[in-house]
Amino acid sequence: MSLIVQKFGGSSVADADSIKRVARRIVDTHLAGHEVVVVVSAMGDTTDDLIELAEQVSPKPAARELDMLLTAGERISMAVLAMAIHDLGAEARSYTGSQAGMITDSAHGAARIVEVTPGRIRSALDDRAIPIVAGFQGVARDTKDITTLGRGGTDTTAVALAVALSADVCEIYTDVDGVFTADPRIVPRARQLDSVTYEEMLELAAAGAKVLHLRSVEYARRFDLPVHVRSSFSAHEGTWVLSDRALTDRIVRNAQGGSTVEQPIISGTVADTNDAKITVVGVPDRPGEAAAIFTALADANINIDMIVQNVSAEATGRTDVTFTCPQGSAAKALAALEAVRDAIGFASLAFDDEIAKISLVGAGMRSHPGVSATFFSSLAEAGVNVEMISTSEIRISIVTRAAVAAEAVRALHTAFGLDADGEAVVYAGTGR
Amino acid sequence: MSLIVQKFGGSSVADADSIKRVARRIVDTHLAGHEVVVVVSAMGDTTDDLIELAEQVSPKPAARELDMLLTAGERISMAVLAMAIHDLGAEARSYTGSQAGMITDSAHGAARIVEVTPGRIRSALDDRAIPIVAGFQGVARDTKDITTLGRGGTDTTAVALAVALSADVCEIYTDVDGVFTADPRIVPRARQLDSVTYEEMLELAAAGAKVLHLRSVEYARRFDLPVHVRSSFSAHEGTWVLSDRALTDRIVRNAQGGSTVEQPIISGTVADTNDAKITVVGVPDRPGEAAAIFTALADANINIDMIVQNVSAEATGRTDVTFTCPQGSAAKALAALEAVRDAIGFASLAFDDEIAKISLVGAGMRSHPGVSATFFSSLAEAGVNVEMISTSEIRISIVTRAAVAAEAVRALHTAFGLDADGEAVVYAGTGR
Repeated sequence: MSLIVQKFGGSSVADADSIKRVARRIVDTHLAGHEVVVVVSAMGDTTDDLIELAEQVSPKPAARELDMLLTAGERISMAVLAMAIHDLGAEARSYTGSQAGMITDSAHGAARIVEVTPGRIRSALDDRAIPIVAGFQGVARDTKDITTLGRGGTDTTAVALAVALSADVCEIYTDVDGVFTADPRIVPRARQLDSVTYEEMLELAAAGAKVLHLRSVEYARRFDLPVHVRSSFSAHEGTWVLSDRALTDRIVRNAQGGSTVEQPIISGTVADTNDAKITVVGVPDRPGEAAAIFTALADANINIDMIVQNVSAEATGRTDVTFTCPQGSAAKALAALEAVRDAIGFASLAFDDEIAKISLVGAGMRSHPGVSATFFSSLAEAGVNVEMISTSEIRISIVTRAAVAAEAVRALHTAFGLDADGEAVVYAGTGR
Repeated sequence: MSLIVQKFGGSSVADADSIKRVARRIVDTHLAGHEVVVVVSAMGDTTDDLIELAEQVSPKPAARELDMLLTAGERISMAVLAMAIHDLGAEARSYTGSQAGMITDSAHGAARIVEVTPGRIRSALDDRAIPIVAGFQGVARDTKDITTLGRGGTDTTAVALAVALSADVCEIYTDVDGVFTADPRIVPRARQLDSVTYEEMLELAAAGAKVLHLRSVEYARRFDLPVHVRSSFSAHEGTWVLSDRALTDRIVRNAQGGSTVEQPIISGTVADTNDAKITVVGVPDRPGEAAAIFTALADANINIDMIVQNVSAEATGRTDVTFTCPQGSAAKALAALEAVRDAIGFASLAFDDEIAKISLVGAGMRSHPGVSATFFSSLAEAGVNVEMISTSEIRISIVTRAAVAAEAVRALHTAFGLDADGEAVVYAGTGR
């Protein structure tokens, strides 16, 4: 008997029929003798609908109240899911984040989990009931107010609860079969990965892969919790997210069992077209000017991704500083920079949101020289112009035109031998 | 400075514009220097929509989960209302029933309030904030599960909170100007009452008047809390629901102020077409048979209203027992009786849902002989046939055909001199 936490996203519980299907799967796991804890998102577009309602009433909704409002979404989905499970003859009990012991700080809209005290969940399991927990939400330790963890927070709820309950695995159900070497909508020959390390998954999530939320991977990594990403539409084995060591064990075990699973050098290539590029033109080339720029941006709460500083033009003693940030923060970033223009003394700002970030991720590149050479030469052959470069130990990213993003990903996918023999199955919708 | 609890029903917060209008009214009361606590229902048809969703998933939704589901409705309305108040420059904080200290028993769907501990509400008031409390819901003392008080429960939440906070008044905002001598849609010349006693209001509610929920009136009466029923669409003075003594004081005070308000003999006449009539035919005329019938109905949780037993037909030694109950419970009542048919030995069951109960209510009838005579003679003149009769100290009710209900109410309204000079204003929609 295992203790399994199963997380279902909004697209898995979008309507009454989906909910009944998910209920069937949960009860099957329960009847197989496992202890099952379910974490669920709001149904389909509920969260967006609630945000729209808030905006109809208030141009800038109060953060505490927006959290109170949005948590109604999971309340609905979890109660209805519990009803569907009841009808299949099993006992289910729904719990809000607060009831499930998800204690957070009081940063409304982006709360951090500070403690998980799942006493009521444990009691429900001891009664042979199936607890259904609202994802994405908690209660603030100090104020006792309802909080939300921000977009993608339901993954984090599931992982945190799994850790607190010492679960054997956290299963993340989504609308694709697992983690792929590329987005199958862009690269039809993308392959599903049998497993990836936490580090690779972190890099893939940071590079723009949507399948798992970054924070949940960080949390799983910190506590070494196995995560299994799989489809709620099929019974296929999905992708395991594991530690280096657990992954090696798995490969050895599979090999002994006659299976040929092998850890590839590269685990994936990702395009992200949600960033914008801002160039601060004519910055005086003195020590401290870059710091002034990024302090202004940090004060405005802007998440910066890549940064490039041009070589100073000798004649002028001035340089250009270019960075990328989410398109949604670009207006705020430009305003923050305008406010310090005179103090810094730069000439102008240039803005560009027609960019794409192309990333190649793989733990294997640590030990395989020549990855960079293949990377840049295959992009050059595909006619992809490189505007910015950033690397980590297991990732290379570049910025190019958004228009050539798909072409760039396909070129890399082929160059690194990732193409499968057949085409991947693609499901409609996207998870949350 | 007064402490005022203001309750807004679903039709008062049906959409973004209504919510902004209600917010304006709340802030105006706040700015006038009063402490304001708001209790709110779910927006418009939200509760019905949620019930429909539950029924799509489950033919008989689990009661605990149905409560969890339905309480999402008030969560939405209260959060959005708090946002709208924020935008008007006042601080508002929404609280679930649980957060507001509405402690109940664990009878899901029809929970009773066992204690109110509004510590967080009192703290919010001390901070000069406006607490917005979810109506209709609480938390079970024993199980800590979320409960609902049943239909109309938001009135009860408002009154219970007002009592616990020692409020000066509980204002019930609805879509009509107050309590009328008859439903203005049936009797265009119905008059708005300046005030009624708790007893009269209880009889009016029991007789089918929808404006205030019975339980909330019982609660207000027990703790002698003044209730003011008024329109959320106008600034008119509404109808005060008071104790006998407070009402006498009010009349004296108004008279001293030159006002001519006077307590009428009759406060209203009501038609209720939601009941059904069931006759148990051929019951053996022995002691204990009626008890057996009503024990069976009580065990099936059927609320019985009027009961009539015919004189026994001497030749047969058998009698007929007729009673009325809500149409919604009729099928269950018939089934419960069929189950004891052999044990009791009755001949058959007759069912009739084309009936109306017509009631005349007035504390004045205690001291005014002749009310019954006028009642029955005016109905006879209007050609209304009387099928059943039931009376209390301050009420006379009869059952007749549903088709003549409006005619019967109009005849009584005129006969007791209740017709106003002009026609009442009627607003669209109905409160909850």
